[in-house]
Amino acid sequence: MTSESLPRTAESPNDPVGVRDAVRAVPAYPFTPVDAPIKLDQNESPYDFPAELKALAAERMLARPWNRYPDLHADTLRERIAAFEGWNPEGVVVTPGSNVLIKLLTELAGIGQTVVTVSPTFSVYTLEAQLLGARLVQVPLGADFSLPVEGLKAALRENPPGVLYVTQPHAPTGFADPQAAVRELVEAAQGWVVVLDEAYHQFSGTDYRDLIRAGGNRIGLRTFSKAWGLAGVRLGYALSTPTLAAHVQKLVSAFNVGLLAQTALEVALEHPGYVEDRAREVVAERERVLAALGGHPVWRAHPSQANFFLLRTPDADAAYRHLLSHGIVVRRQDKLPGLQGCLRVSIGTPAENDVFLAAARDFR
Amino acid sequence: MTSESLPRTAESPNDPVGVRDAVRAVPAYPFTPVDAPIKLDQNESPYDFPAELKALAAERMLARPWNRYPDLHADTLRERIAAFEGWNPEGVVVTPGSNVLIKLLTELAGIGQTVVTVSPTFSVYTLEAQLLGARLVQVPLGADFSLPVEGLKAALRENPPGVLYVTQPHAPTGFADPQAAVRELVEAAQGWVVVLDEAYHQFSGTDYRDLIRAGGNRIGLRTFSKAWGLAGVRLGYALSTPTLAAHVQKLVSAFNVGLLAQTALEVALEHPGYVEDRAREVVAERERVLAALGGHPVWRAHPSQANFFLLRTPDADAAYRHLLSHGIVVRRQDKLPGLQGCLRVSIGTPAENDVFLAAARDFR
Repeated sequence: MTSESLPRTAESPNDPVGVRDAVRAVPAYPFTPVDAPIKLDQNESPYDFPAELKALAAERMLARPWNRYPDLHADTLRERIAAFEGWNPEGVVVTPGSNVLIKLLTELAGIGQTVVTVSPTFSVYTLEAQLLGARLVQVPLGADFSLPVEGLKAALRENPPGVLYVTQPHAPTGFADPQAAVRELVEAAQGWVVVLDEAYHQFSGTDYRDLIRAGGNRIGLRTFSKAWGLAGVRLGYALSTPTLAAHVQKLVSAFNVGLLAQTALEVALEHPGYVEDRAREVVAERERVLAALGGHPVWRAHPSQANFFLLRTPDADAAYRHLLSHGIVVRRQDKLPGLQGCLRVSIGTPAENDVFLAAARDFR
Repeated sequence: MTSESLPRTAESPNDPVGVRDAVRAVPAYPFTPVDAPIKLDQNESPYDFPAELKALAAERMLARPWNRYPDLHADTLRERIAAFEGWNPEGVVVTPGSNVLIKLLTELAGIGQTVVTVSPTFSVYTLEAQLLGARLVQVPLGADFSLPVEGLKAALRENPPGVLYVTQPHAPTGFADPQAAVRELVEAAQGWVVVLDEAYHQFSGTDYRDLIRAGGNRIGLRTFSKAWGLAGVRLGYALSTPTLAAHVQKLVSAFNVGLLAQTALEVALEHPGYVEDRAREVVAERERVLAALGGHPVWRAHPSQANFFLLRTPDADAAYRHLLSHGIVVRRQDKLPGLQGCLRVSIGTPAENDVFLAAARDFR
């Protein structure tokens, strides 16, 4: 990737010398937070971590020394995640959010190599590929948002190896592919590091741990930011073989997960019962909202297996502003390929979803 | 860097395919925590964050939602650091530890370019250069641990640009160079991204903010892990121009500093008074310990301007085990070039330092 081949929007005559062209070529992250009473824009849980667990976590934090470096690789936390997932602790890697793991996986097998994913896809896969100097190959999703298995297999054949990203259910579409399609693709990716991102799996009921366990070059990604209601605490984790995990671990900055987050996560893993109940409510609410939107005169909701869905509108800007005028902030996705007019709407509490549905009915 | 040119200690026939050679070539981080009543091995503050501030931080954490993503770039925290440092908030970048910033600076200007530093030096500079595929050039320190200014200037002339790391006071030696030498070197590094790491500046009284401010390609690194007594919370920060900081910020994973750490650091920055008192005690204790070691029959302490010092012994292993038998854990540095027989000893509380001095007197 050269500076000539990409828009250099961030560049100016005063740009500091020494900075790599690939970094100069990427514009600054465009996210601007919007304040609104009903936040349906970041696919968070609408419910806070339970108050009694927050109190228990805070109590433990106070009893621990803040002046000492935490566990180098958060071993206690890794062991608890391993116990929860039925995994070998040496195959678990934790970082402050799974977006950090995506950076590290690009460092592991993307720099100077190839990153293959679909389009549209989770922006961090492509951003890190661009920043770190990987050859980026994107294959368009099917019209129904299904994985383009044949196209991806061709991309794997035609490029020197690197990283393949598969997201189930997919973001930003919410589509979950048939398991057979996912297995066919993953099994075809011999010689590649295959990343199976399951950030939203609690809402789809899918579970690819068996597929990850079956191969030496496969990595599953999971997160505490969605179903667990802990986006603020920041923790994502990788599940892999001890051998591959040891390579990833070299790339994790020492002491990367702080004591406060480690403590909060340990408490969560000791009391995971709330997660399933909440995920069940989100799924029921998602189906209720999608059904209620079925008869909408102009908006069309795409089916979803995640805690969000895509809303296709004739004019994304007008729809966005209409919802905002009703106190609801959602995420525009209409600039992404194949998502013309689309907004991404997170599932909120039942009361928030009622406000959303009333606002939808009010639009014409 | 090819796999042939480096020891492949981590490799086995079962190694997963796709992983870059540079990652395979680096052995796993060798740190094994050692339990001992007196921890003088990680250059931490021997004092916890004040109890009343911990309580205040916990109270605020409980009042905030843990299910929501934190500030994308921790803007409130960046503004408070800027106010504390007299800096433009747009020139401040925060990450969970300054070791993360060193990774990002290697991504900014090291990948496929050059990293220049001294030898011995802070291991993260060289580790990230190796992992990410930078050409690594190291110039030996002077016999008195001073910066090899002429040698470094030659390295800057003879290599295509990238990143130059300068550490003041230096780690792992504790040596602070004359300001004129540092300025001469930094001013000679036109075309390079110059990183001035000031992790230990509160113990040396040095302050290179003016030098950083004077040039467009200079970055200062500071941390909450040492004088602030917050190693467990994880926060390091960069001070630079808004233009260069914007490039670094692109490389920071979104939401990288969690809500709990942001909250704790905000409280610290509202009550920074304890830091100066404690740094003053560390400096007085350092001078007391170094003076008391002056007449030691076999051990020789190197002078230091940091919160640690190097102890030169005839047999590092014997000295390490002797101290451990007295309940004291220190860090071996005897495998580093020029540091034969050296242990690195952090300054503890006065009582801990008394135990250390008694153990030293007991060694023959």
